[in-house]
Amino acid sequence: MEQEFSSRLLENAVRELSHLPGVGRKTALRLALHLLRQDKSIAIGLGQSLIDLREGITYCSTCHNISETETCPVCANPMRDKSKICVVETVKDVMSFENTRQFDGVYHVLGGLISPIDGIGPDSLEINSLVERVAAGNIKEVILALSPTMEGDTTNFYIYRKLMDTNVTVTQLSRGVSVGNEIDYTDEVTLGRSLINRVPFAR
Amino acid sequence: MEQEFSSRLLENAVRELSHLPGVGRKTALRLALHLLRQDKSIAIGLGQSLIDLREGITYCSTCHNISETETCPVCANPMRDKSKICVVETVKDVMSFENTRQFDGVYHVLGGLISPIDGIGPDSLEINSLVERVAAGNIKEVILALSPTMEGDTTNFYIYRKLMDTNVTVTQLSRGVSVGNEIDYTDEVTLGRSLINRVPFAR
Repeated sequence: MEQEFSSRLLENAVRELSHLPGVGRKTALRLALHLLRQDKSIAIGLGQSLIDLREGITYCSTCHNISETETCPVCANPMRDKSKICVVETVKDVMSFENTRQFDGVYHVLGGLISPIDGIGPDSLEINSLVERVAAGNIKEVILALSPTMEGDTTNFYIYRKLMDTNVTVTQLSRGVSVGNEIDYTDEVTLGRSLINRVPFAR
Repeated sequence: MEQEFSSRLLENAVRELSHLPGVGRKTALRLALHLLRQDKSIAIGLGQSLIDLREGITYCSTCHNISETETCPVCANPMRDKSKICVVETVKDVMSFENTRQFDGVYHVLGGLISPIDGIGPDSLEINSLVERVAAGNIKEVILALSPTMEGDTTNFYIYRKLMDTNVTVTQLSRGVSVGNEIDYTDEVTLGRSLINRVPFAR
């Protein structure tokens, strides 16, 4: 049974908070009452930051990463090598790769992976815009950095087929044992792949 | 290691979302990116509702329940019996009792329970204002509806001592087996209490 609240404002906040993923009405009420107990600035700061976030953030017209400007900071950076495009699924993946500080190229965010079961075909994703970016020239390498799942592999293969007649080099992330993981706990497919793709010893 | 974001707006929203209980930086980022993927109205509606909530809601000057007005709807309702005060710990407890539709009196929200270990003494709670309400007269019964825990019992006893010299009747919630629970799973203290406090059979 839905609880009725004496306050329309509380009712409103609870309904809006329930839009967050993993937040039901009970949790939403807990969050709202928590905010009411805190200093006024907490709830108002949170509320305003969400409005600013959604009003101020747009997507980079080149790579589809989030950006506060027409072109994102990565694409706009003259130090980045524009001839290497790292293809990722989401904006979060861009952050993950940026945090490694190992990549000096640019990105292309697909916005998802091909998944017929979820009704996501190539046309729902930013694949055509990737092909256009490559066709526009000056691209030497496309790095497929999608998750090593069925959907990721399908998408990798689809993109590979689209690009195979161009003269860009298409590469993908190496697959092998995770750093810090024990061999004992690594699945056999990964282990087999790590053996096939072994590299010269280096400290 | 803290992730760095390319966007100050995203950074801001993540920091503000982390103020919510049980939300760390990773969850906050997930929530922010979720809001960015949704329709603009979702994030803006949520943000505005939190600002409205915190700016519009105050506490009833009589019972300390949340209210959009100086006096909450319960206290302002002429149909409610002002001579019966149900003493509860939190605003949420008021909602729980209101949902039972079994109480026609008014409330008094303490804002917590006496808990020396957490540094919460009687003066941090709305106990003095309760005593004043009773002293002001016209109160016949004070119902102690606090949690049946050590802190609840301590607070019950403290309030009882404060009111024992007045001529109000002090009552407390009955303790017994929960409706729908199996005897087998009921703890022996509750079971013992339910036997001592047995009531005439009624369908």
